[in-house]
Amino acid sequence: MSAFFDVAVIGGGPGGYVAALRAAQRGLNVVCIDDGVNAQGEPSPGGTCLNVGCIPSKSLLQSSELFAQIQHEAAVHGVKVKEVSFDVPSMIQRKDAIVRRLTQGIRLLFEKNKVTHISGQATLREPHDGLWQVQVNEQTVSAKNVVIATGSQPRQLADVATDNTHILDNRGALSLTECPARLGVIGAGVIGLELGSVWNRVGAQVTLLEMAETFLPALEPRMANEVRKAMVASGLEMQFGVSIDAVERQGDEVVIRWQQGGNVQETRVDKLIVAIGREPRLSGIDLAALGLASNGRGGIDVDALCRTGKPGLWAIGDVVRGPMLAHKAMEEGLNVADQIAGLPVEPVNFSLIPSVIYTQPEVAWVGESESTLKASGIDFTKGHSLFAGNGRALALGQDGGRCTLYADKRTDRVLGGAIVGPQASELINEIGLAMTFSASGEDIACAVHAHPTLSEVIHEAAMALNKQALHG
Amino acid sequence: MSAFFDVAVIGGGPGGYVAALRAAQRGLNVVCIDDGVNAQGEPSPGGTCLNVGCIPSKSLLQSSELFAQIQHEAAVHGVKVKEVSFDVPSMIQRKDAIVRRLTQGIRLLFEKNKVTHISGQATLREPHDGLWQVQVNEQTVSAKNVVIATGSQPRQLADVATDNTHILDNRGALSLTECPARLGVIGAGVIGLELGSVWNRVGAQVTLLEMAETFLPALEPRMANEVRKAMVASGLEMQFGVSIDAVERQGDEVVIRWQQGGNVQETRVDKLIVAIGREPRLSGIDLAALGLASNGRGGIDVDALCRTGKPGLWAIGDVVRGPMLAHKAMEEGLNVADQIAGLPVEPVNFSLIPSVIYTQPEVAWVGESESTLKASGIDFTKGHSLFAGNGRALALGQDGGRCTLYADKRTDRVLGGAIVGPQASELINEIGLAMTFSASGEDIACAVHAHPTLSEVIHEAAMALNKQALHG
Repeated sequence: MSAFFDVAVIGGGPGGYVAALRAAQRGLNVVCIDDGVNAQGEPSPGGTCLNVGCIPSKSLLQSSELFAQIQHEAAVHGVKVKEVSFDVPSMIQRKDAIVRRLTQGIRLLFEKNKVTHISGQATLREPHDGLWQVQVNEQTVSAKNVVIATGSQPRQLADVATDNTHILDNRGALSLTECPARLGVIGAGVIGLELGSVWNRVGAQVTLLEMAETFLPALEPRMANEVRKAMVASGLEMQFGVSIDAVERQGDEVVIRWQQGGNVQETRVDKLIVAIGREPRLSGIDLAALGLASNGRGGIDVDALCRTGKPGLWAIGDVVRGPMLAHKAMEEGLNVADQIAGLPVEPVNFSLIPSVIYTQPEVAWVGESESTLKASGIDFTKGHSLFAGNGRALALGQDGGRCTLYADKRTDRVLGGAIVGPQASELINEIGLAMTFSASGEDIACAVHAHPTLSEVIHEAAMALNKQALHG
Repeated sequence: MSAFFDVAVIGGGPGGYVAALRAAQRGLNVVCIDDGVNAQGEPSPGGTCLNVGCIPSKSLLQSSELFAQIQHEAAVHGVKVKEVSFDVPSMIQRKDAIVRRLTQGIRLLFEKNKVTHISGQATLREPHDGLWQVQVNEQTVSAKNVVIATGSQPRQLADVATDNTHILDNRGALSLTECPARLGVIGAGVIGLELGSVWNRVGAQVTLLEMAETFLPALEPRMANEVRKAMVASGLEMQFGVSIDAVERQGDEVVIRWQQGGNVQETRVDKLIVAIGREPRLSGIDLAALGLASNGRGGIDVDALCRTGKPGLWAIGDVVRGPMLAHKAMEEGLNVADQIAGLPVEPVNFSLIPSVIYTQPEVAWVGESESTLKASGIDFTKGHSLFAGNGRALALGQDGGRCTLYADKRTDRVLGGAIVGPQASELINEIGLAMTFSASGEDIACAVHAHPTLSEVIHEAAMALNKQALHG
């Protein structure tokens, strides 16, 4: 193996592996160093997203949703079943197979694109003769450019260590081999809602404790309320405005002492998921020693083009500012690889980065929200449409939810959108694409949408922006 | 009721009801005359699409797909079921309820928008004092403008009358109260494939007989082949290059005598669906008496703006040229209503009208296809991506299929796209929207797509157009 590279990427998650592939496609000599290892001890690139995040959670969501669907929806369709039961190990096994296929797929992509892949823990050292030095597995790699893509790790509650047997982070919550009878979840954000839903559907009594008073603040209140109602109807118990006093393991139980509006409460569960957010992961990156600035949330300070200020040193993804989302990291990976290859780029535009929660109903939004628009003082209009009037949604049996679009009142330019309902995760991409083109509401209203499709809710919301809704 | 209107719309299908609503929203005094009646004898606007087309077929597809999913996929997800069976009347009842909700919804929209709704068979007469005369239920309505939106009807085989007990058109095929043991389908187009799939999934042995040699000619051969293989794997028998010699009812059987490459064959079935296309429906419209030109396929000749050449007389949807699709009719409905209201419009651009087949896998395309591009001599590039490398598709357990985009080689402008795979029906709308903006491949490649979503196949295909696919 050559010890000199044009680019060394530290971290093989969505940001890192994409940066490495694109840089290699641009003709650069690239190494990607990743410390991920799976349960079989094999190198397992892909980062949190592929190994213990987006992908495994979607796998469990799909399995548990099918179980829920068979229990609650089959009869009305004419499907008669007897003795429906659920086998958690099968669900986990399927998830592991999917994760393995994708992570090993990245290894193949590295080979195909001639990216050198080193499995191990990297430590970044100061440059020597103008080349950055990366120590890994007792060897030293030198590189003209280093892309730090070390990602993030779960935030922990103060004084409460996750043990991943009873007190779980995402990793433990995705690998339970049996369904707990009582599950506590601290945090009603994306991760808490998704994992709470999975285990609730397959039999757990789930209690979510959320510190904030407001549920899903990125959504307009009636939309957030619709999601909350659906979650509660599906069996999740949710408490807001909660402060956690203590979390303690007692034998095979976890005891949570919490307060809400001055009332002291105690909840006993068999397992507790802590999902209170994520924080930058700086393993192998000593900010002080390298003379790098912190970004105020414990990550690396970079400019809009992911430059650290040190020549040839870049940082992307969760370890820098911006939304901690895989597709944001990927976009920065492409962006930095192109810069290293000497190509002109524009900064990644965070207002075009969609967010998704893969619950039932799905929730997705992009761009400005009602509250950010109100805060900014922009004069805006709002167009909304309901899945209840959508033929495809009725045929699917999923006719709850709505689509809201926001536009500049003066120019009709679409500034943001949100969807609660079936396939919101997919539909949001159309709104994002439209916003990439600075679309007006009328532009979207003029685009023909296939009938009958769920996407027609976007068309209808766009017409509503100019008070021309047909089905409203 | 006033006997004078600004606009009389003949037909309350997707073209007609949308034209009526939009014209009313533009401040015009509108009547919509529709002869649809449901099994309960109630007026049932919505045309073929809502009553015996798109919507009921999607309802049956969903029910039968859930049945197939439970039989073939549940186990791998960990869902254990015993004694799975299917009850056809429940499926049909659910479908009827959905159709009723939507058709009665149109009546409410008429009320809300102050569109007068007359249930009855309209006959159009020559203008009198500059006003068109429409006879309906022994009264005469006069209107400055008439929009003919009479739609289409199933094409029949020569010498073979559909009786809708044994030899069925779409109406009969959507209302069977039990699953036939042996089902024949003549025509492997959209309707034949969708209805053949429904009844095959719930237990029928299905044989599709198609006259053409080529399956789904709008798709590139490898895509069409992928669909064909999936259909065959799901249990459909398909024969191509078939000529039908005779169809005859013998007692409770239907006997089909057909030939293929000179070999004479006979197939005996319990029910036969004839799905060989649709033809314009001219009920109440006497072309000769009104001095209107025929369009060469038995419909009304109109220009690009749906003008018949007679002042104030317009025709839209299936009864005129262009693809016989609900969303094309809707678009023409909006377009004509705006023209009548004196607003400037552009002709509907047929190259932006998506087509969808809601089979498993779903199939969708928009714009130019490989064969039309080759025929046109345009120098084009092709970018494709597979669902097999898409994390969401793996999580869903639907990782077959692909996305192909076509772009002008010189300008990178996207000229068409096709998708075979999960949610193709929804994803195609993003390609259509991009094409509405004359997007280049690079434009789509620069648009951030949420991860993990199926829509990423479009992003990946767009990158592939410029040989920058990450996962290819």
